[in-house]
Amino acid sequence: MTERTLIKNLAAATDGPVSVSGWVDTVRDQKKVQFVVLRDESGAVQLVHPRAFAEDGTPAEDALADAISGLAQGTFLTATGELKHDERVKLGGVEIKLEGMDIAAAAIPETPIADDTGVDKRMDWRFLDLRQPKNNLIFRIQTTLEHAWRTYWVENDFIELHTPKLMASASESKAELFEVEYFEGKAYLAQSPQFFKQMAQPAGFGKIFEIGPAFRADPSFTSRHATEFTSVDAEISWIDSHEDVMKLHEELLIAGFQAVKDKHGEEIKALFDLDITVPTAPFPRIPLAEAKQIVAERGYTVPRTDADMDPEGERQIAAYALEKYGSEFVFLTDYASSIRPFYHMRHADDAGLTNSYDLIFNGVEISTGAQREHRVDVLIEQAKDKGLDPEELDFYLDFFRYGVPPHGGFGMGLSRVVMLMLHLPNIREATYLFRGPTRLTP
Amino acid sequence: MTERTLIKNLAAATDGPVSVSGWVDTVRDQKKVQFVVLRDESGAVQLVHPRAFAEDGTPAEDALADAISGLAQGTFLTATGELKHDERVKLGGVEIKLEGMDIAAAAIPETPIADDTGVDKRMDWRFLDLRQPKNNLIFRIQTTLEHAWRTYWVENDFIELHTPKLMASASESKAELFEVEYFEGKAYLAQSPQFFKQMAQPAGFGKIFEIGPAFRADPSFTSRHATEFTSVDAEISWIDSHEDVMKLHEELLIAGFQAVKDKHGEEIKALFDLDITVPTAPFPRIPLAEAKQIVAERGYTVPRTDADMDPEGERQIAAYALEKYGSEFVFLTDYASSIRPFYHMRHADDAGLTNSYDLIFNGVEISTGAQREHRVDVLIEQAKDKGLDPEELDFYLDFFRYGVPPHGGFGMGLSRVVMLMLHLPNIREATYLFRGPTRLTP
Repeated sequence: MTERTLIKNLAAATDGPVSVSGWVDTVRDQKKVQFVVLRDESGAVQLVHPRAFAEDGTPAEDALADAISGLAQGTFLTATGELKHDERVKLGGVEIKLEGMDIAAAAIPETPIADDTGVDKRMDWRFLDLRQPKNNLIFRIQTTLEHAWRTYWVENDFIELHTPKLMASASESKAELFEVEYFEGKAYLAQSPQFFKQMAQPAGFGKIFEIGPAFRADPSFTSRHATEFTSVDAEISWIDSHEDVMKLHEELLIAGFQAVKDKHGEEIKALFDLDITVPTAPFPRIPLAEAKQIVAERGYTVPRTDADMDPEGERQIAAYALEKYGSEFVFLTDYASSIRPFYHMRHADDAGLTNSYDLIFNGVEISTGAQREHRVDVLIEQAKDKGLDPEELDFYLDFFRYGVPPHGGFGMGLSRVVMLMLHLPNIREATYLFRGPTRLTP
Repeated sequence: MTERTLIKNLAAATDGPVSVSGWVDTVRDQKKVQFVVLRDESGAVQLVHPRAFAEDGTPAEDALADAISGLAQGTFLTATGELKHDERVKLGGVEIKLEGMDIAAAAIPETPIADDTGVDKRMDWRFLDLRQPKNNLIFRIQTTLEHAWRTYWVENDFIELHTPKLMASASESKAELFEVEYFEGKAYLAQSPQFFKQMAQPAGFGKIFEIGPAFRADPSFTSRHATEFTSVDAEISWIDSHEDVMKLHEELLIAGFQAVKDKHGEEIKALFDLDITVPTAPFPRIPLAEAKQIVAERGYTVPRTDADMDPEGERQIAAYALEKYGSEFVFLTDYASSIRPFYHMRHADDAGLTNSYDLIFNGVEISTGAQREHRVDVLIEQAKDKGLDPEELDFYLDFFRYGVPPHGGFGMGLSRVVMLMLHLPNIREATYLFRGPTRLTP
């Protein structure tokens, strides 16, 4: 048996016997000749079969032709035949004159989704939806992005963590918390690895990262929320302020975007009609209060009673950063203590502000970062200030009582980065299997 | 302010002003001179302070000496002083003559655990336990191992998945399933990414990997079980049999062990008194029935009524593989269908056996792999054969109805590999924060 050749490697292969494996994309069943476009994980190729005819011009018996006529879209098969380079063939400049087919699994002929099917039904049939070259590319890009990040981390002596997702209490807020039946008691799903990645600091790990799931029982149905998402986290010791965290964040994003552009730039251009811009440091930094002024001067008043931004405000400040600094990224800094968690460090000279930031990318928040409060007495006061009971936080506060370095870090939503990088309309498109309040399948 | 130098870089630094940051390991508070061993994520260094004396030989006022006397183990601080190379200093051949200390967080003086504290109490204070150089090294090794695996995968065009951990039904068995309150309904925690990594095959992803959490409501308290563990998964298309999966598995383990030996071999020797053996392919393959005979000939009869091995049998066959083949790894193959899940492919000529294997490393099972049954009619029969209702599996069976390639893969427990590589007595030691039936904290 001829060994399988990946379709992307056919152009560089020599003419002659060849074997490819993939699924049927389209069949053109013409009178004199049949064409099958076969697709695999690396590309698509045209298989060709001239029908057999008797000397009088009537169709001859042709089992292969019958088999081709019976092919349903999606059928997986191995095709053997003769590879032939022919520059007239639009699809890659090669075709395979078919000699045999070995069908691995015949598909049901009726395909439940089409090109114009809406996102929700496509999610029902996600495994078919993912056969689209664009969708396949999304996850290759994500793979490259993550690997570039991890390579940066590993080369810079970060330790990788796998923090537990089962917890005895809430990690962020008691709202939006999933409860688990845990033997005779209860457990909760981690809303973030916050407490446990901070734990690595008194443990003396220095610098850590984690890419893993996080869970929020958030009943919203926006284009950017999910009940389960992949959180990209880093935390580092011995920082002077959140500025050190932002620098790390910049270096990571630059390394990731560069890797994506290098590896997939051409394909992204071809399939998404997009040029990936590798950002340059420093990204603009705008204190939140100033950002709100800028947005107001652009004619938009954020309709919130607290000090926070809203999604339209984020779009506006992103537009400003792009116009003024040519940057798709902008850090909004120095959020008010009133809208930040108790563990964010507050300014030494103004307890109303925190050493924190949000990172906005193409108009949407993708990350929150901060210096953490590491002085346990201050931390306890800040928890009380937020109406929290320090006793319930005791296991967390212990991390600070036995010595801890100054530290900070960020959490970032993986699918949001990918969604915004590729200008996708919805986080569902950038998630392998989306989970929302009414979506637990497939 | 002098920039922070990592302690591991002091030996190569020139004598002169230096600043290091870390935590107090030990204080030797002698009459004439004080010594502090300061540890950071990269090593340990001796700080020295000769006490000040008046001309008449009585102790002089000395604020720094008082501060040193007051240092508790675990206090995090930044020390500045003069670096001096001195080959008489056992600890790295350097010391720092202390000039100042900036205390970031003073530790409570009483440390709740000591060197001889039992594992369960050490887990209560895991963040202190992890300060031990051996424990720190365990997670650096794990980082290197994972990165080597991912690098292998990425270089071989695998796509990284993040499959959902929230599911509408069981992925493996209805026993050992954690139930989650999910808005008005119920969800379940994934026991493995099995169904979803298989979904990538009809999706045309070709080759995929995932490292992520898996959850088992298993009430056992052995040295190798956890209710939450990190599962290392791969799945590939167009295999001929489980032999192709085993080949992938071998290549991965070789790449991972080589990377660990290259990067940490000396440290592992120093701290664990172990030489890492990089395995060579092929690992021995022994059909399970034959393995049971071999074990019986060694004088141990597996006391099970089903066809399976037991832990002592695994130790025995591992001892055999080490003696006979010099291999710490051994594949046990061709498990009986009766003890394998419905989705394992069965032998074409003997439905009583499966195209599957377990991988045993240093006497303990670390992984199960198999070729999957991709023919939906056969799959449905095998599900019924196991007493499963195909209707409940409908979303999974759909993956096969619209075309699917032959495929297979494995799942492997990350902490088990690390535990067995380093000869640790318990999986708790190889897990950042262990989760068991009675352990949800910290």
